[in-house]
Amino acid sequence: MANGAEIMVQKKDGGEEENMAAWLLGVQTLRIQPYQLPPLGPHDVKVSIKALGICGSDVHHFKTMRCANFIVKKPMVIGHECAGIIEAIGSEVKNLAPGDRVALEPGISCSRCNLCKNGRYNLCREMRFFGSPPTNGSLANKVVHPASLCYKLPENVSLEEGAMCEPLSVGVHACRRAQVGPETTVLILGAGPIGLITLLAARAFGAPRVVMTDVDESRLAIAKSLGADELIQVSTEMKDASEEVVNVQTAMGSGIDVTFDCVGYNKTMTTALNATRSGGKVCLIGLALSEMTIPLTPAAAREVDVIGIFRYRNTWPLCLDFLKTGKIDVKPLITHRFKFTQEDVDAAFETSARGGNAIKCMFNL
Amino acid sequence: MANGAEIMVQKKDGGEEENMAAWLLGVQTLRIQPYQLPPLGPHDVKVSIKALGICGSDVHHFKTMRCANFIVKKPMVIGHECAGIIEAIGSEVKNLAPGDRVALEPGISCSRCNLCKNGRYNLCREMRFFGSPPTNGSLANKVVHPASLCYKLPENVSLEEGAMCEPLSVGVHACRRAQVGPETTVLILGAGPIGLITLLAARAFGAPRVVMTDVDESRLAIAKSLGADELIQVSTEMKDASEEVVNVQTAMGSGIDVTFDCVGYNKTMTTALNATRSGGKVCLIGLALSEMTIPLTPAAAREVDVIGIFRYRNTWPLCLDFLKTGKIDVKPLITHRFKFTQEDVDAAFETSARGGNAIKCMFNL
Amino acid sequence: MANGAEIMVQKKDGGEEENMAAWLLGVQTLRIQPYQLPPLGPHDVKVSIKALGICGSDVHHFKTMRCANFIVKKPMVIGHECAGIIEAIGSEVKNLAPGDRVALEPGISCSRCNLCKNGRYNLCREMRFFGSPPTNGSLANKVVHPASLCYKLPENVSLEEGAMCEPLSVGVHACRRAQVGPETTVLILGAGPIGLITLLAARAFGAPRVVMTDVDESRLAIAKSLGADELIQVSTEMKDASEEVVNVQTAMGSGIDVTFDCVGYNKTMTTALNATRSGGKVCLIGLALSEMTIPLTPAAAREVDVIGIFRYRNTWPLCLDFLKTGKIDVKPLITHRFKFTQEDVDAAFETSARGGNAIKCMFNL
Amino acid sequence: MANGAEIMVQKKDGGEEENMAAWLLGVQTLRIQPYQLPPLGPHDVKVSIKALGICGSDVHHFKTMRCANFIVKKPMVIGHECAGIIEAIGSEVKNLAPGDRVALEPGISCSRCNLCKNGRYNLCREMRFFGSPPTNGSLANKVVHPASLCYKLPENVSLEEGAMCEPLSVGVHACRRAQVGPETTVLILGAGPIGLITLLAARAFGAPRVVMTDVDESRLAIAKSLGADELIQVSTEMKDASEEVVNVQTAMGSGIDVTFDCVGYNKTMTTALNATRSGGKVCLIGLALSEMTIPLTPAAAREVDVIGIFRYRNTWPLCLDFLKTGKIDVKPLITHRFKFTQEDVDAAFETSARGGNAIKCMFNL
Repeated sequence: MANGAEIMVQKKDGGEEENMAAWLLGVQTLRIQPYQLPPLGPHDVKVSIKALGICGSDVHHFKTMRCANFIVKKPMVIGHECAGIIEAIGSEVKNLAPGDRVALEPGISCSRCNLCKNGRYNLCREMRFFGSPPTNGSLANKVVHPASLCYKLPENVSLEEGAMCEPLSVGVHACRRAQVGPETTVLILGAGPIGLITLLAARAFGAPRVVMTDVDESRLAIAKSLGADELIQVSTEMKDASEEVVNVQTAMGSGIDVTFDCVGYNKTMTTALNATRSGGKVCLIGLALSEMTIPLTPAAAREVDVIGIFRYRNTWPLCLDFLKTGKIDVKPLITHRFKFTQEDVDAAFETSARGGNAIKCMFNL
Repeated sequence: MANGAEIMVQKKDGGEEENMAAWLLGVQTLRIQPYQLPPLGPHDVKVSIKALGICGSDVHHFKTMRCANFIVKKPMVIGHECAGIIEAIGSEVKNLAPGDRVALEPGISCSRCNLCKNGRYNLCREMRFFGSPPTNGSLANKVVHPASLCYKLPENVSLEEGAMCEPLSVGVHACRRAQVGPETTVLILGAGPIGLITLLAARAFGAPRVVMTDVDESRLAIAKSLGADELIQVSTEMKDASEEVVNVQTAMGSGIDVTFDCVGYNKTMTTALNATRSGGKVCLIGLALSEMTIPLTPAAAREVDVIGIFRYRNTWPLCLDFLKTGKIDVKPLITHRFKFTQEDVDAAFETSARGGNAIKCMFNL
Repeated sequence: MANGAEIMVQKKDGGEEENMAAWLLGVQTLRIQPYQLPPLGPHDVKVSIKALGICGSDVHHFKTMRCANFIVKKPMVIGHECAGIIEAIGSEVKNLAPGDRVALEPGISCSRCNLCKNGRYNLCREMRFFGSPPTNGSLANKVVHPASLCYKLPENVSLEEGAMCEPLSVGVHACRRAQVGPETTVLILGAGPIGLITLLAARAFGAPRVVMTDVDESRLAIAKSLGADELIQVSTEMKDASEEVVNVQTAMGSGIDVTFDCVGYNKTMTTALNATRSGGKVCLIGLALSEMTIPLTPAAAREVDVIGIFRYRNTWPLCLDFLKTGKIDVKPLITHRFKFTQEDVDAAFETSARGGNAIKCMFNL
Repeated sequence: MANGAEIMVQKKDGGEEENMAAWLLGVQTLRIQPYQLPPLGPHDVKVSIKALGICGSDVHHFKTMRCANFIVKKPMVIGHECAGIIEAIGSEVKNLAPGDRVALEPGISCSRCNLCKNGRYNLCREMRFFGSPPTNGSLANKVVHPASLCYKLPENVSLEEGAMCEPLSVGVHACRRAQVGPETTVLILGAGPIGLITLLAARAFGAPRVVMTDVDESRLAIAKSLGADELIQVSTEMKDASEEVVNVQTAMGSGIDVTFDCVGYNKTMTTALNATRSGGKVCLIGLALSEMTIPLTPAAAREVDVIGIFRYRNTWPLCLDFLKTGKIDVKPLITHRFKFTQEDVDAAFETSARGGNAIKCMFNL
């Protein structure tokens, strides 16, 4: 197959450039190939994608052709954390115009079911979500998307930052559900990408004190640089859990109101349940294990509630406001940059899959 | 030691009758012995106890000298589900008078800590609670208690029903925390005393449809008679869990909004987490296991929240209103009655400890 | 113009019957004339309307060509409280079939704005609502409507009862917003149609005690028959307000948690603000006056909040459940019935406009 | 009567200094006279008052011997915004020690009524509140107060700042009740002391944009210096209200989520009701008028809720955290300082009563 970058500049019959996308064809097999867009509906816009970040779920799809219960059964365009420039607008679109820089919320809900009507559209069963099978994603030159899910970037917010609204939304949604505010002390277990995002979000929601744990010293150093008040290195051994609970409580200096488990192992959840104050909340974000062995009952008997989250809902305006006002700076999280070529696509997913010092790998298209 | 009943009618020095109480002296050792009351404070009342029910936690104390982390280290008066008649009032008490029939809320919180100030006084760390070590209980002829925790019985509510406000409060508090209302479909796992109480409470909160499960057919029959819409007999085998999830969902006929696990085993919690609809709630009431192995993550990823409860707070007025208006009838739950004699105290606790067809054992003093 | 009923049975060119509707052409001028339906979209259904009730807002339009800020500027089909039978379904409609009996939620929101995304779609600025200018209503043989706003009637719920879901929704939405439950004592000011509906809703939400007031003894008698606990006849004189506050508080016998003002005059709102307990809520439903002179400050300084409502959102499933289970019986509210003829349309609106003993005028089409 | 300052240094019989306090004896008549403290209860502390600010309600008492329904019928010690140093502790006090610097929450609730049990203790009918008749206040050398209402000052928070927790609590409570957070745009009407405090609180709760109005240019300048985003000078003429609504909406640049009316006139409340977005909230803090003539109905019909507040509940820990972390700086609000002498007491109350450029008059004792 020819190099994607070359194809991109070719014109087909002297007409419009052909739209290219990164198709997931099999395990660890991504190919840049033509992608025929659906027609532009009256409420849709056509967006030229300019920045796209790789998410852990993309890596799951890449490595295993599945993520949780979602299985890739036929070739699918990958990617969903993106921003771009409006190229065309549908006949009924009023608040966007060609040339506008926008961040894209990737999921289209049905707007007809009970959950949509009640505003919990992230739980809609008919959600069509970029790069979640069988829906094509947005690592493409162009996509067609509902205008109502494209949010204009403030002047001082870059396209890369726009793409970061997606992972940031997870932290924002978690903070909303856990009702983090200026009275909420926060413990975050795990300083990986999602833990760091949650740290930024908790700070922006006013959390007066945030303590973080991780097994990896270098990750804790990053968390420190991003504003965590106290960092505690922990082990992976369950036998250390009791002592670590004491340590995080001591580091907090007062009751722990909300704990975010951004890992999802038995040990992190055990620490979460035991460390959180009576009447507090544990929010489970990390999904490492499906089945867990945890001391749930003693926590329940102290009215420590366990709050789950799934993606986010209507978070883009807030994320963009956080970025515009500088309450949140996501730029330090972008550690690696790639072009939209076959070579770079391969390299980017390999880099993401390796983990290590890569927090966010970002394509510039 | 002389028979308690005899002592009760004796006068000491021709003065006031000596106050007798059931003291827990050791494992399975209860003795009716004199109990010197504390002085009557200005905001206290002295109550002549007339009805007292035995709770599962009393049985735990009786059998093991402990319940959860609370350990009986010295002789303690047992019992806490009670009602009686006001005998004397403190100097500042205005809304109660001698002769008033009252139900007693058993726990005295500090009213000074942060949780008390915020209205979550059931989580107060300095709670002094009838019959929870080291605080003496109320299986006694008389007790002294704050007037603000003694609630006047409506005319048509008996003293036995008054005593039932305590277990009923657990169901009421669970329904409040889970926000049960006329739009909430309810699944209750376990048709023991607490499951049945939760059924009555859920109905009174307006739950339009309640499905219940148990392993025991005779318990399901009781649940049926108390108003459950559908009963499903389940096994104790984890291998049956998937099928049972389908069964309860089918029996509900629509999404399950709230599941109350009134058992607290791996299997019941697994059913709870898998059966509840996305965005619904699981409320863990039964505390059979401390550590649980459960599929928490998939539920969290559907925003099924796990809500814990500890006792109750400010539930007596609502319970009494439910009893007064007939929205709840607790009388069918009182299956066995006993007198306040040494013989009957022994028999009552043995009956409760055996379980079987005993739902509520009630003393009439 | 020919009689509508005759036209209805005529076939146009031997083809489909022409669809007729009641057009509001001018002040107090309604004419049954042909109504060309929009095409059936993929998510729409075509409904043969069988029952339609007249609402106070319809009467406003009829008498003045306006209601609040909504002005009838060109001929408009009137009516919006309706139920009917599905005649055809769009290509994507799955949960409805021709022959299904359905109640229609009359407002179509945009599903794209911030309020829609957050589940408060009743406040959507682009709402298109049956019979609210410039959107045509549903007093017609047939209408086209989104399937997601058509709710299948339970077998034991009649088409007339289905049409009553619309006014009932106002009471249901008010009770939801005011958080009425089994602990909420309720005062309702005004025993007109909306007051009576609110009474039924408050009861269904579990309100343990409902006191109602009106100036009209016969209306109070109806309220009594529908289940109000206490009725108090009041005057229209502001000088009586203080005494009446004492009367309603005495009739309640405890603090008034929520007051629904279903009238909206200075005097009713004054009573509402002064009678409600500290920390309670006043819900303003009646809209008689735009500008009010009221003692707002003393109520605010007792944290009595004033809650407004606009129509309803996602109330049909609950209304239908209330009707199915018999928790609410709306049939006594239907006091007058009419056919869909020019003569009857004129008579029905005259009857509604007169008020008097007419609670709900219902068309059977 | 001798000069208070002199008396203070005298010893009575060589024993303890006599405690002096500022007694309100009549209209505009304050006298420093001896004040015999109640005995120190087991849960009480004795505090040497070091800083005390004058509140608008103190001025009302001073000028008219009343405030709202509270009437001064006999001599009363004035003042309630205070901080000091612990001098002695009761036998049961554990978390405070002599020498501790503390801020005092001035109101003692009963802890027994329904409102106290539910955590809304600020609405307790039996509240005894410093300087609210008939309860003596705290403009005194020493007071006795419950330890649970005395909050230790962080090292970097001065006694004057500690005294400022009281007015700050009003803004904090208002922001809590109106649920201000990082998504809440805020309009504040009135840039007097309470408006400025609300500005500081709204900022600390994360409000991304705050627009303020006042009739006085110099007050707006202060608001600007304290961090308001946009200032709009308004008139006192109702005829200007419509235009001003447009102005504040334009200045906000998006919907106004919450409006705080810190004045309480017909015109400010009219602006509040008309300017706030559908589904938003108006919080009435200023209490200038008891009866108001306002367009309540159109706002209610857009689900704009009116939230009242009364003082505050459990706000001190949050206020102290805001001061400690520097999220709020109250020092610029302290514009005048006075000593605890008869001369200065007179001068301080005259200065406060004049208003003008005085925001907060503070005593240093």
